[in-house]
Amino acid sequence: MPVTDIATRVYDHGWRLDPVVRSLLDTDFYKLPMLQMIRHLHPEVQATFSLINRTTSVRLAETVDEAELREQLDHARTLRFSKKELIWLAGNNFYGKRRMFAPEFIDWLATFQLSDYELRTVDGQFELTFSGPWTHTTMWEIPALTILNELRSRMALKGKGRFELDVLYARAKAKLWSKVEQLRTLPDLVLSDFGTRRRHSFLWQRWCVEALREGLGSRFVGSSNVLLAMDNDLEAIGTNAHELPMVLAALAQDDAGVAAAPYRVLEEWQAHYDGNLLVVLPDAFGTTAFLRDAPKWLADWTGFRPDSMPPIEGGEQIMAWWQAHGRDPATKLLIFSDAMDVDSIQATYRHFQGRVRMSFGWGTNLTNDFRGCDPAGGTGLEPISLVAKVTSANGRPVVKLSDNPAKATGDPAEIARYLRIFGRDGRVEQMPVV
Amino acid sequence: MPVTDIATRVYDHGWRLDPVVRSLLDTDFYKLPMLQMIRHLHPEVQATFSLINRTTSVRLAETVDEAELREQLDHARTLRFSKKELIWLAGNNFYGKRRMFAPEFIDWLATFQLSDYELRTVDGQFELTFSGPWTHTTMWEIPALTILNELRSRMALKGKGRFELDVLYARAKAKLWSKVEQLRTLPDLVLSDFGTRRRHSFLWQRWCVEALREGLGSRFVGSSNVLLAMDNDLEAIGTNAHELPMVLAALAQDDAGVAAAPYRVLEEWQAHYDGNLLVVLPDAFGTTAFLRDAPKWLADWTGFRPDSMPPIEGGEQIMAWWQAHGRDPATKLLIFSDAMDVDSIQATYRHFQGRVRMSFGWGTNLTNDFRGCDPAGGTGLEPISLVAKVTSANGRPVVKLSDNPAKATGDPAEIARYLRIFGRDGRVEQMPVV
Repeated sequence: MPVTDIATRVYDHGWRLDPVVRSLLDTDFYKLPMLQMIRHLHPEVQATFSLINRTTSVRLAETVDEAELREQLDHARTLRFSKKELIWLAGNNFYGKRRMFAPEFIDWLATFQLSDYELRTVDGQFELTFSGPWTHTTMWEIPALTILNELRSRMALKGKGRFELDVLYARAKAKLWSKVEQLRTLPDLVLSDFGTRRRHSFLWQRWCVEALREGLGSRFVGSSNVLLAMDNDLEAIGTNAHELPMVLAALAQDDAGVAAAPYRVLEEWQAHYDGNLLVVLPDAFGTTAFLRDAPKWLADWTGFRPDSMPPIEGGEQIMAWWQAHGRDPATKLLIFSDAMDVDSIQATYRHFQGRVRMSFGWGTNLTNDFRGCDPAGGTGLEPISLVAKVTSANGRPVVKLSDNPAKATGDPAEIARYLRIFGRDGRVEQMPVV
Repeated sequence: MPVTDIATRVYDHGWRLDPVVRSLLDTDFYKLPMLQMIRHLHPEVQATFSLINRTTSVRLAETVDEAELREQLDHARTLRFSKKELIWLAGNNFYGKRRMFAPEFIDWLATFQLSDYELRTVDGQFELTFSGPWTHTTMWEIPALTILNELRSRMALKGKGRFELDVLYARAKAKLWSKVEQLRTLPDLVLSDFGTRRRHSFLWQRWCVEALREGLGSRFVGSSNVLLAMDNDLEAIGTNAHELPMVLAALAQDDAGVAAAPYRVLEEWQAHYDGNLLVVLPDAFGTTAFLRDAPKWLADWTGFRPDSMPPIEGGEQIMAWWQAHGRDPATKLLIFSDAMDVDSIQATYRHFQGRVRMSFGWGTNLTNDFRGCDPAGGTGLEPISLVAKVTSANGRPVVKLSDNPAKATGDPAEIARYLRIFGRDGRVEQMPVV
């Protein structure tokens, strides 16, 4: 006779909330070294982060219930770093470096709590903003995105039968495993999971990470998700993000200060970190402008992460810059992580093979590819281009240009000013899919 | 924190046997109407059933442990029909007929037990025979096959990791669902599960049946598996099998008696059953010979089940015979059930569409198609051509010819004699795959 656990069943009848985020470590690793530096150098900066849904055709507030969203955001605010998590952050080596996080920073984390939020619904979209000290609002980026994306998945799955769900996940598993089988034909592949922010769900990301571990062996080097890295003894992967040059540029007194901001932030970074953390993210205001004005000392850094230019084009520009500075690209590292999938990973790998060290960060197409998996069809499980960006710093507007004008964020007048400062060279409009 | 049910876990540490067969109803439906008739007309016949592995390349006794096989066979002998099962057999309508099974037969079933077996290992194969009253040995056919096939599956899966198994079953589910999606494009499809004997496992067959129910709706009409039919309120599907003409031919006094046996058994059958149970299985000694000598009254029967000739060729021969006897094939039924899969179902459906009523029995390729599903590769999950055939009756050798000489069973001298009696017309050698 089939055995049903009565306690579990009765609990299921009555449960109130299935939290999307259950740990403050369920975030991307880069947030932590950035946070330590922000706290050290810019503790007084006030920064506002805002949710931006670039897939305007999806009216998010008509899909996800606002009250449910509030419950999840409120639950995330109740979280604290646990003792085990703090001990691990203090004791673990990151990128081979011991004690990356200072004891005093760990002590500060012990009382850390996510700051308050403002939420309203306007014209079918959520206006969700986080205002307060940069040290606190920055930590909302990933949980805000994972909560919204998972609530959207749940709505798309609501009401489906047990069997339909079984087929759906069977197909998604079969699909991912076929991708893994293709990727393991690349002998020197170096790949990590970068799929936290746009994942289908936490449990599905965990399955994906396990699949990579089982299928890719040593080709799979780690996860950007700190919690999954801790739980699975994986490397936590990540360096820094656009918010650093964006905020520093916004706070600059004049155009010259804006133009200098992308390099000043890297000086600050270098004072804090070394080795594999010395990776340049060149595209906050455009890669072409960045390389044109970059100081020579940046050629000593370990690598670059081209993030909004097509990977081959971006990689070639950076390699040409290294060569112009007398460096052998074969000793340097390129990290590709913008909307990668099996085909673009294979093409990029083959293009650069033997000429440069490569590492791939596989995001949305790893942790949220359910295309063709729903027996009932529908588009509710297709990932959308949702971001949480810093939009103001000490009351001044913050701008991102990127290499792709479709990804620019900020006040139009300020965008125009930044375009005058950095120039328009090398910008290619592409519809951001994810 | 993940919850582990301690009682379940501790039980798992210590359990002795996971029975393949847990009910005497876990068999093909045709066994029951045949049993009622055998018991009525031939209660004294002694019959021996023997396991025959036609896939000689697979050395079964080197894969499956003999002691484990004995444990499963012994366990099957402990089974009795439960009260609920007997009440259902007595009260359910089969093919729209009430009280197909006489109360006296139901009473007799209440004490039914599978007979003893003889098992030895010879040259890497099992010699497994069941000797005794035909009424008892006939009931071993399906459990003997399901036990051997499932033990073989278990050996192929032994030692695989949790994750590898997860991918394997995800792929098998995705694969079956793609087949279902192809089949539901056929608007008037009538299909049943005939996959008990060569199933991967009981649980997998149950999943397959659920998939057909979910995906095919009214196109899916039932299962040959009596237990699954009962548990899921499906029609139990099946009529009669080769063993009837085979035994009657073996018991015949002379060649004329052998030649008459296939028709005599149908007279007996007609006296017991009617309607959709009046389906001719024409190929025990060859379809061409059967039709050549068939009496006119057979043209009044509901349909035919061609079983060892290619479906289109077999169907055309039978339709020509109906037309020669002045019957409109459009009012008649053809049941196709020999090694069918999605492609042959579609081709056969399209070939005969509008000209004859059709019903498909989908067997091994429904319940045991794991080709390409094992992440580690290997052939241990490929189905083999395993049958349990009646080999002697009252001490006389029993023969099957079929339309496919590769499927013939019996003593070579007797096969030669039967070939003289029935002729060689229409026989096509084909390697039996499943």
